[in-house]
Amino acid sequence: VNGTRLGGETDRETRDVIWTRDPRTGTTMPTHLEPTSTERVAEIAQRAADAASPLHRAGRAARAVLLEAIAAEIERHVDELIAVADAETGLGEPRLRGELARSAHQFRLFATAIREGSYLEAMIDHADESAAPPAPDLRRMLVPVGPVAVFGSSNFPFAFSVLGGDTASALAAGAPVVVKAHGSHPLTSARSFEILAAAAATAGLPRDIVGIVYGQPAGTALVGHPAIAAVGFTGSLAAATALCDTIAARPKPIPFFGELSSINPVVVTPAAAAAHAGDIARGLFASVTGSAGQLCTKPGVVLLPAGAAGQAIVDRLRELFRDADEAVVLNSRIRDSYVAFSERLRDAPGASLLPTRAEGESADGFVVAPCLVEIEATALADTAEECFGPLVMVSRYQDVGEIVGVLGGIPSSLTATLHVEHHEELLDTLLPALEAHAGRIVFNGYPTGVRVSWAQHHGGPWPATNSQHTSVGVTAMRRFLRPLVWQNAPASALPAELREDVTEIPRRVDGVLRPARVADRNDGDRP
Amino acid sequence: VNGTRLGGETDRETRDVIWTRDPRTGTTMPTHLEPTSTERVAEIAQRAADAASPLHRAGRAARAVLLEAIAAEIERHVDELIAVADAETGLGEPRLRGELARSAHQFRLFATAIREGSYLEAMIDHADESAAPPAPDLRRMLVPVGPVAVFGSSNFPFAFSVLGGDTASALAAGAPVVVKAHGSHPLTSARSFEILAAAAATAGLPRDIVGIVYGQPAGTALVGHPAIAAVGFTGSLAAATALCDTIAARPKPIPFFGELSSINPVVVTPAAAAAHAGDIARGLFASVTGSAGQLCTKPGVVLLPAGAAGQAIVDRLRELFRDADEAVVLNSRIRDSYVAFSERLRDAPGASLLPTRAEGESADGFVVAPCLVEIEATALADTAEECFGPLVMVSRYQDVGEIVGVLGGIPSSLTATLHVEHHEELLDTLLPALEAHAGRIVFNGYPTGVRVSWAQHHGGPWPATNSQHTSVGVTAMRRFLRPLVWQNAPASALPAELREDVTEIPRRVDGVLRPARVADRNDGDRP
Repeated sequence: VNGTRLGGETDRETRDVIWTRDPRTGTTMPTHLEPTSTERVAEIAQRAADAASPLHRAGRAARAVLLEAIAAEIERHVDELIAVADAETGLGEPRLRGELARSAHQFRLFATAIREGSYLEAMIDHADESAAPPAPDLRRMLVPVGPVAVFGSSNFPFAFSVLGGDTASALAAGAPVVVKAHGSHPLTSARSFEILAAAAATAGLPRDIVGIVYGQPAGTALVGHPAIAAVGFTGSLAAATALCDTIAARPKPIPFFGELSSINPVVVTPAAAAAHAGDIARGLFASVTGSAGQLCTKPGVVLLPAGAAGQAIVDRLRELFRDADEAVVLNSRIRDSYVAFSERLRDAPGASLLPTRAEGESADGFVVAPCLVEIEATALADTAEECFGPLVMVSRYQDVGEIVGVLGGIPSSLTATLHVEHHEELLDTLLPALEAHAGRIVFNGYPTGVRVSWAQHHGGPWPATNSQHTSVGVTAMRRFLRPLVWQNAPASALPAELREDVTEIPRRVDGVLRPARVADRNDGDRP
Repeated sequence: VNGTRLGGETDRETRDVIWTRDPRTGTTMPTHLEPTSTERVAEIAQRAADAASPLHRAGRAARAVLLEAIAAEIERHVDELIAVADAETGLGEPRLRGELARSAHQFRLFATAIREGSYLEAMIDHADESAAPPAPDLRRMLVPVGPVAVFGSSNFPFAFSVLGGDTASALAAGAPVVVKAHGSHPLTSARSFEILAAAAATAGLPRDIVGIVYGQPAGTALVGHPAIAAVGFTGSLAAATALCDTIAARPKPIPFFGELSSINPVVVTPAAAAAHAGDIARGLFASVTGSAGQLCTKPGVVLLPAGAAGQAIVDRLRELFRDADEAVVLNSRIRDSYVAFSERLRDAPGASLLPTRAEGESADGFVVAPCLVEIEATALADTAEECFGPLVMVSRYQDVGEIVGVLGGIPSSLTATLHVEHHEELLDTLLPALEAHAGRIVFNGYPTGVRVSWAQHHGGPWPATNSQHTSVGVTAMRRFLRPLVWQNAPASALPAELREDVTEIPRRVDGVLRPARVADRNDGDRP
């Protein structure tokens, strides 16, 4: 089959094969992969369930070896992985190289975390016969929930996909993973899955601790399968809603951890605008247009002060957007949504767009023009929504009340950003509003670039996520764990971490936190 | 109105007033309370939302004072509270006195926990300019989600109701509480609410951090109100399903933390049965019939070995149930469900009931007869379900495979109990099955009597609860908290707990857990 000949002829894509597309040219090619049948999904899910107990009982040390083997396997195949992913995503070599480094770091960080052992939340309350009524001995720690279905994202072919944080955190927790490959990068997903499988073999763990399925129907079947115990999802609100309907129809519902949508408002105070107009304009432009604006933390709404300082930022932004290169986005759906959104904005009260056409000029490929939208602050509540692609909405505010009003009127976000010069008075009003709005408050910076570390939180009030959990950082593991308590258990029936006199991990004993007693351990975050 | 005259005339209960019933006599009386109108629910929910920021920003010390004031206020009014509750529940003075002590202890334990500060999960990752890309400073801790709707239980008028663990954990977390009073004890709820309100005044906190509503429609309106951020629920699967439908219809869904249903299987190994037949029979009988069998951890299914040792336990149980006194249950719905369930079991394969009639003989009052159901193990999958009241189903097993089959066939539970004599070989197979089945594994004891402490977990796989969280113990707070991260924040914008050089609370700094540095602190669990 000649790929070029089939370019764009999506009508001819059949359901018997998985297709890949080159977003730079729009070329469509069949792959060697097939959509996974419902029967095969059931088999993969059941095998994952059968592997759950071996993976859990292999212990933390064995799982740390697994995670480090995945990191090493990634690094051994970096160039090959970049080549496959660049052809399917158009994201370019520097970005993809950085993303793979992030993936490998992520697996190593979880290895460090499970060796350290705090995540177990191990606690012992010794028996108290003198209490009324007498109190039994209780020993608590977290255990894995069971197989996790992972739905990777379109925009991170590595760090939020097969080799992403959901996979890393689930395996670290001791939960097998079945990934639904994203349709935008099936070959990257397949090659990534080989990395996981090879590392499982290296670590001497069952092959079935990881599985992969292809195609939308397979994803639905996966979420509906009784062996699946939780879902980690990164994607659109619409796709999430469909999966949640499937979950609601299960005899036993399961937790769904979704990262769904985010506008990421940026607020610039009058003093910050006056002091740093040029820097802020350049920083915003870079944050909006980086990775073709396809980041879940891309700034979507910017609130600038009325007056000259705010105007200086707008003027500089106009220059930057006027001179901006066209950008290649991941797929036709993102391109079409981008163009449709900008068309809708054109009719909003007081809106003006630069350039006036957001559709790219190239006939081939999934190409868009970066777009600056100036719009009345009062119009944001009715118009602002997540839009993948290099578009930002900029409004001017008169006072802090207007900022708070905008934050209350637009959907909640993963992040909220504040540029502030000193402890300006409006902070007393503004900070609580920002804290209520998002899961991460960024000061004098930009929300894109999510550090993978212990303290990170990548989550936020609905619809940013549907949960009180994060999908980035060490605490992401908590999604795939549940507490279990042993009451008056003999030592032989207890997990090693809950036996008497264990000092290698932090535990709370009779209410008192006892750190691990390991003099020469370094459990720090060493990227 | 003459209460006696109206006894049992529930047709005449109007919707204009809240009614109370004496379960010992069936007497029905109107109260001074009214069903809360939808408009009034909205007002109460909005006031709770307005009180959320003051409650959070009052800080941990002020909230600890609040919780201790509630405990003191409970203790000041113990006799009065017992009198009101006994008239509405028939649970009797010793049980209610114990429950109030538990309630007071619970509030004090949460006060200890929030002073100690681990629950904040405070973490700091300092900036690392040498990293590629440079890593920003991240500071994370948990903050309250906002107002919580609490649905108290029928069976614990104090410890799982207005003065219960959901209220205590939410207030500790910094979240205002609006309680839906349970229809089985409205006057107890009203008097309990006065305790909360008085303590809020004592602690100098806004009155609106606590609210209460009456009547089923008010409960539905509460869960649907946009100001409510989470739900803590103890009750039936059916009631939970209705509330979850209301949540699903909200523009912004919210987390629902339900404790829903539990069968609490008990397994006795052959060696344990041989060694302790009499003790086990007496212990089981007490656990099944205590509080008239109206405990969510009441043993519902007991698996005994085939053969003489198992038979000895059955024989002793028959004697105990034959001689048992009738019991008063909380309301007519529990009595009717109990009788209907025993009627259904009568027709199950190989089932025999003792006594043959589970309906109490008294004409008045909500009275039932304790009931021993012997039934084939193979019939359990089709019959076993939660049944409030002093009924237990007992089956015999041939081998460990049959036990595992039963555990896989009946719904999951809050607890699973094992009587075991030494490290018998079947444990290797049995322990993983018990761990998969429940949230707490009890060895050589009984699941009733839930210790309130740091390490407790009162939760389990669906349908025991719908979540990975507990409703009893210090970690219950986690349900009403969400993470928040400040990136590169100036000290003046940070909460006190995340500023540099804080040593009063445990924190993780650059990946290393640092316990609090307070030499003379005792953070233990001191009931």
